[in-house]
Amino acid sequence: MPEIAFYQDRFIEVDEPVIPIQERGHQFGDGIYEVIRVYNGVPFTMREHMERMEESAGLIRMELPYPAQEIERLALEALRRSDILEAEIYIQITRGIHIRQHHFPEPAASALSIIIKDARIVPEDKRMSGVDVITRDDVRWKLCYVKSLNLLPNVMAKQEAVEAGAQEALFVDNNVVKEGSSSNVFIVKDGIVKTHPATKGILHGITRRVVIDTAREAGIPLEETRFTTEELHEADEAFLTSTTMELLSIRQVDHHLLSESRLVTDRLFAAFQEKKEKERSNWHKTR
Amino acid sequence: MPEIAFYQDRFIEVDEPVIPIQERGHQFGDGIYEVIRVYNGVPFTMREHMERMEESAGLIRMELPYPAQEIERLALEALRRSDILEAEIYIQITRGIHIRQHHFPEPAASALSIIIKDARIVPEDKRMSGVDVITRDDVRWKLCYVKSLNLLPNVMAKQEAVEAGAQEALFVDNNVVKEGSSSNVFIVKDGIVKTHPATKGILHGITRRVVIDTAREAGIPLEETRFTTEELHEADEAFLTSTTMELLSIRQVDHHLLSESRLVTDRLFAAFQEKKEKERSNWHKTR
Repeated sequence: MPEIAFYQDRFIEVDEPVIPIQERGHQFGDGIYEVIRVYNGVPFTMREHMERMEESAGLIRMELPYPAQEIERLALEALRRSDILEAEIYIQITRGIHIRQHHFPEPAASALSIIIKDARIVPEDKRMSGVDVITRDDVRWKLCYVKSLNLLPNVMAKQEAVEAGAQEALFVDNNVVKEGSSSNVFIVKDGIVKTHPATKGILHGITRRVVIDTAREAGIPLEETRFTTEELHEADEAFLTSTTMELLSIRQVDHHLLSESRLVTDRLFAAFQEKKEKERSNWHKTR
Repeated sequence: MPEIAFYQDRFIEVDEPVIPIQERGHQFGDGIYEVIRVYNGVPFTMREHMERMEESAGLIRMELPYPAQEIERLALEALRRSDILEAEIYIQITRGIHIRQHHFPEPAASALSIIIKDARIVPEDKRMSGVDVITRDDVRWKLCYVKSLNLLPNVMAKQEAVEAGAQEALFVDNNVVKEGSSSNVFIVKDGIVKTHPATKGILHGITRRVVIDTAREAGIPLEETRFTTEELHEADEAFLTSTTMELLSIRQVDHHLLSESRLVTDRLFAAFQEKKEKERSNWHKTR
């Protein structure tokens, strides 16, 4: 099944060179992105991703090159052309092609990229065993709620995780565990689920939001509250959330083995799967 | 006189599309850059820029695609082909083309971009009058000494400056004036020149360094020390430094008019011009 891409105003090959050196993604990381998971041909939480895309663009004062609805339509058309059933839709919008200057191009020249490719699926043994994570000092900027292309600190942290044989690096700020380099993080203690509040300092993950809603619907107590490295170590359960990881148990933090309990995580994971099924069924009804 | 560019392994047109969507500059801002000013055909502080390029690459653990000496040679060859006498050499190195993943590509695939174009020259009236600046909260990451492509906060601040009719935005952290969005900043008070120390929190500008050396050689007292917004307001003189601005007096900060004195700034600017001349003459002797 072929990968397919879209750039500016046409469908292209994924590896086609379409961007010149003086492009604001390439020179400033001046743009935003979304990753949407497609299950058996149906995108999950597409509307939420489109809404966040609009929010991120607004936060960096970037006009979208098309209305969000048209971007969604183009993404779905790309998905259809790709014929990939278990897919990821990657959408990126930059402030476009312009001679290098820090301030915004005038008139606006923002450019849309879309890529459809095979989903990265967490192997079953990892999902069973849980994954290892490391912690790193949070050196990122103060506006991590913008889903921007300024991802160098995330790149560096993830690389250190990979070198440590771990799945993810968690950013810690003054001993407060904030989130992973490409995920949010939750703990469970005495039956209460906890995750960092949706401040300007963390990304407001869509899967994070789905898990919070799921917990509330299931009557599982949940607090959006800060927790420390020690609270993570002493948690009954801990897990990562992201579009590609879904809910993924943490086995070990910096060589510190966590409790093996999975009671609440398993309940949330099951409820998450139900939510996927329900959305899939609604999708087919409404199209 | 033609602009010219280089990408990976060949000379290209400046606006030639050479980069696919999945390129680490474009998707992560995963790279570094340098801007070098060319005066009458001769690059200024080329060696210092090449050294900083190597340092920046080291800080993000990125292998250079060529030895620094070869990158310099390619830049000079591009300059020769462009035939532009008053030029800027823009050099950018990213971790290259790779399917999207946060961690480093293996094997390394870093890619070199070079652009030669007409220098942006500060208009004489602006140089005489001095320029206006605004201040903005420093929301950037903690490692601003890396000359990286993660420039979104700089983009946003510069845009706000432009909208305020100002030349530059100064980043202020807990009332400490750190630097501009694309410049360093100096004040003079009671005959003493002051600029923020070269911590990890500011860019170690080459022009900043040249001005510091120039001051020391001329016997002008200089301190690398923090100063506040109030100290900037009450300074006898204040100026920006950058490769393209050289030394540029500040007239006004957030609608607050500064003293009109220029005594020390003019001495430093004259000494800076001498330094340029001297390096130019040495360049011709040694080539």
